[in-house]
Amino acid sequence: MKVGFIGLGRMGAAMAANLLKSGHQVTIYNRTPAKAQPLIANGAQLAGCVAEACRGEAVVTMLADDQALAGVSFGTEGILASLAPDAVHISCSTISIALSKQLADSHRKVAQRFVAAPVFGRPQAAEARQLFIIAAGDPGAITAATPLLDAMGQKTVVAGEAPESANLVKLSGNFLIASVIESFGEASALAAKGGIEPQRYLEIMSETLFNLPVFKSYGTLIAAAKFTPAGFAAPLGLKDVKLALEAGDALRVPLPLASLLRDRFLALLARGGEELDWSAIGRLAAADAGLQ
Amino acid sequence: MKVGFIGLGRMGAAMAANLLKSGHQVTIYNRTPAKAQPLIANGAQLAGCVAEACRGEAVVTMLADDQALAGVSFGTEGILASLAPDAVHISCSTISIALSKQLADSHRKVAQRFVAAPVFGRPQAAEARQLFIIAAGDPGAITAATPLLDAMGQKTVVAGEAPESANLVKLSGNFLIASVIESFGEASALAAKGGIEPQRYLEIMSETLFNLPVFKSYGTLIAAAKFTPAGFAAPLGLKDVKLALEAGDALRVPLPLASLLRDRFLALLARGGEELDWSAIGRLAAADAGLQ
Amino acid sequence: MKVGFIGLGRMGAAMAANLLKSGHQVTIYNRTPAKAQPLIANGAQLAGCVAEACRGEAVVTMLADDQALAGVSFGTEGILASLAPDAVHISCSTISIALSKQLADSHRKVAQRFVAAPVFGRPQAAEARQLFIIAAGDPGAITAATPLLDAMGQKTVVAGEAPESANLVKLSGNFLIASVIESFGEASALAAKGGIEPQRYLEIMSETLFNLPVFKSYGTLIAAAKFTPAGFAAPLGLKDVKLALEAGDALRVPLPLASLLRDRFLALLARGGEELDWSAIGRLAAADAGLQ
Amino acid sequence: MKVGFIGLGRMGAAMAANLLKSGHQVTIYNRTPAKAQPLIANGAQLAGCVAEACRGEAVVTMLADDQALAGVSFGTEGILASLAPDAVHISCSTISIALSKQLADSHRKVAQRFVAAPVFGRPQAAEARQLFIIAAGDPGAITAATPLLDAMGQKTVVAGEAPESANLVKLSGNFLIASVIESFGEASALAAKGGIEPQRYLEIMSETLFNLPVFKSYGTLIAAAKFTPAGFAAPLGLKDVKLALEAGDALRVPLPLASLLRDRFLALLARGGEELDWSAIGRLAAADAGLQ
Repeated sequence: MKVGFIGLGRMGAAMAANLLKSGHQVTIYNRTPAKAQPLIANGAQLAGCVAEACRGEAVVTMLADDQALAGVSFGTEGILASLAPDAVHISCSTISIALSKQLADSHRKVAQRFVAAPVFGRPQAAEARQLFIIAAGDPGAITAATPLLDAMGQKTVVAGEAPESANLVKLSGNFLIASVIESFGEASALAAKGGIEPQRYLEIMSETLFNLPVFKSYGTLIAAAKFTPAGFAAPLGLKDVKLALEAGDALRVPLPLASLLRDRFLALLARGGEELDWSAIGRLAAADAGLQ
Repeated sequence: MKVGFIGLGRMGAAMAANLLKSGHQVTIYNRTPAKAQPLIANGAQLAGCVAEACRGEAVVTMLADDQALAGVSFGTEGILASLAPDAVHISCSTISIALSKQLADSHRKVAQRFVAAPVFGRPQAAEARQLFIIAAGDPGAITAATPLLDAMGQKTVVAGEAPESANLVKLSGNFLIASVIESFGEASALAAKGGIEPQRYLEIMSETLFNLPVFKSYGTLIAAAKFTPAGFAAPLGLKDVKLALEAGDALRVPLPLASLLRDRFLALLARGGEELDWSAIGRLAAADAGLQ
Repeated sequence: MKVGFIGLGRMGAAMAANLLKSGHQVTIYNRTPAKAQPLIANGAQLAGCVAEACRGEAVVTMLADDQALAGVSFGTEGILASLAPDAVHISCSTISIALSKQLADSHRKVAQRFVAAPVFGRPQAAEARQLFIIAAGDPGAITAATPLLDAMGQKTVVAGEAPESANLVKLSGNFLIASVIESFGEASALAAKGGIEPQRYLEIMSETLFNLPVFKSYGTLIAAAKFTPAGFAAPLGLKDVKLALEAGDALRVPLPLASLLRDRFLALLARGGEELDWSAIGRLAAADAGLQ
Repeated sequence: MKVGFIGLGRMGAAMAANLLKSGHQVTIYNRTPAKAQPLIANGAQLAGCVAEACRGEAVVTMLADDQALAGVSFGTEGILASLAPDAVHISCSTISIALSKQLADSHRKVAQRFVAAPVFGRPQAAEARQLFIIAAGDPGAITAATPLLDAMGQKTVVAGEAPESANLVKLSGNFLIASVIESFGEASALAAKGGIEPQRYLEIMSETLFNLPVFKSYGTLIAAAKFTPAGFAAPLGLKDVKLALEAGDALRVPLPLASLLRDRFLALLARGGEELDWSAIGRLAAADAGLQ
């Protein structure tokens, strides 16, 4: 397919590369063009502006936050103004429920299609095409997007017809991962003060009850206190927990564990953790217990 | 081996049956002898008192709580008074760190051996010999216990030489499971109010990030709100979270997520949940959100 | 002084009436003019638009939230466009730190003065001129505002020169009050299940340690479960706790007790408490304990 | 009256001195007799054992915890074995609901009387006869105890006929005070990062909403970070919060704010706060916010 790709951070660059590998014709756009070089070497076209990346059947966006996505979507030079009728905007960013609804409405009004398709997985998973993609939108739009989604992830799961339902699943999923980080952090702090080394504790739990990649990968980082370089930085973790809480506000759902996570992220950032991986909140229980 | 078995609840009866199946010579004791019949039919000897169950190379105990285990261990007719020198007391109950230390000391003083060997798994897992066993104690004692442990579980992991380290792992593991219950409860309440049915939400998450038996089995109970009959009753869940908190008190480890779980269990019990499975705390987030 | 007054809710109407009583010349404006009649009967002038209320030495605003205050402040017909140089905008609303900063900057740029002067007290206190006023701004501006502040409250305390410091004190103060509500709610639930009636419990505590109007007035509402009519409605309580949390986000201050309060308000609203006084969160501990 | 007094810590010594000042005939007992000298100089008799302090119409106990009180109460030389029929045991210690019930039952069985009379106030208040006393027990017993209670405190409030109701009020009251400490700690951390010094913040709040001795005295300690010497040490604060949580367990009352306080105390003690005043938990919010 002829597709645009906007947003070439570590995640986006890897996803665009996989689109190229699957034979799609990809036009890329990034605010800072330097990042585009390796993709151009592999056959991508470079767009000089957002509009140029919107001339195919679809455009994929993978941006840092609501503000960045809104910035490329709205306005006279934005995606909404540039995409052809029936073309699909596939939004892979982790964004708020509110913005997802707004984009769905806006695209509908100009006869374009919108699929929310946030992803689970860190940069290595993106490179290895191991992402899980949660898609939601009109069934026809999802069908149209499927060849692209298949090229970027190991599996696509459809959450529903309302695009924001995919975003809600994504936010809730990041909340679940952060909950694993917090619970392992508390449990391993307890074990450590009881004489069981974190690394050994991790082995015991992952060989028995918690034989799960998410548990093992974050447990390894926490047990080794290895939080740089950040695969997913702490301020992004805070952002996502806040988006989950905001969704809870709007839907009237108290989320006490998410509240705890929010406070953990703030404590981490207040003590200088801006550059650390978000899993660094998993050491705060140990710090509160007087370890180190 | 010639082994005694004390405590024939649903877990204990299944574990004793597996000892028999593996060819061990088992003498069983239970406060209420009726439960012993099926085991006798399969070759077990019935002991008339605790002391009679202590005449082999080892005795396994699987009891409800500290009080029950202390009741059969101490006193003039108890295990400590009855076991031969070098014989091994294999304690599979979920008990406090304090009692585990006390038993280890007491057995050492009379030249007996003590292995703490708590298990992960619900009654069905016990029947199917699918338990994970966390063992700790003197290496020689563990070696002596291994044929029995192998007969009762799918895998034994050694936590350390101090018996109470196995109990700490068990308590922390139940805390981790309860954390999964709570986090799934909050996430699925959020999803439900956002229009995604709990059953569908469970499928999405377990097909992607959380392909884990613990997540799926508890998620299924919560999504279906099916909490009877209880595989592990709510008061036992509260007991275990309190034991983890108590360990945290003694070791000076704040455990805010465990504190949240404690309050959840109390709220469940205050509203009539005594007979429910402990995973019923996973519906409280939905109740607080005004769902039913 | 010649002063405008914008915002005639229960609080604003009472405050404007006190300005009139002190002999000030008051021009009033409200979106829905009906509320103005009693004040006109007492000598107020009615403004047909915001600009007409901005022709004196000062204008006082007392509005529901950020959106309402921004709505009358900005725009071609707003306060900023209408006020004379050196005139003072006295903002009594409970608003965000961010909006307070923005207003301070905006007024400075057009050589007007801005005093943030949020108030503590419920409508009866406003009527009785018993409000506490927390003021912040340029010392000269505060001096200019003082005759008006003195006419509206029993005491004015200066928080600092940065206007937003008064808003921060206000938000933190509402957080402190909500904390009193929560702690009394938990303590009285415990006492009630232990056999001490809430009303009696309130008497005991307020005759001994907590001889404090805030404690007694909210304790009385909670003990009697009398939450209508709302003196300060639950959604406003949620708004203020969220503004405090938002300030904590921006300043990197974890606020676990404020997080608990936020979840309480959401639980109250999820179960139909939109019309109740915010002190109704003080019954949730009893509800969680199975009382009623 | 002829009265015994057991337990001469800082609180007990001051209370016994006030009994002497009011003209009562006091026989004192302490495990470490040195502390008795100043009282003997003022007319007290020294008892060589618990039993000798039990020969009057009443005996007052003021001890550190359950264990200490049980130690002097039970056993062949204890209060129960020594007190005359109809004599009153006035228990001023902060103890568990369970022990209070047990003592009430035990005294009843031997025709003695039991009044629980825990006190609010720190050592200076005890010296100045400014304690608030919460009494509970049989009305006749309370009448008999009243001259002694009046000699020790500024006011006695009767909580009910079941002695443990006074203990419940005491535990809940300490919980309320600790809640004030926590909420002021969070609010002042927020204010401090927003540019308002803690001391100034305290003044603002105590001149307006929180004109309350408890608020001012603890606020002063927190604002000045002055936690030694401890008026009431952190481990005692933890003890009392745990007793409140334990009462909540037994009565099935979730207490999320008490859970937060428990974790605060553990964090304080884990980081070396054993010798500090319990109000030192009020600086943890600032520490978590990266202040010092």
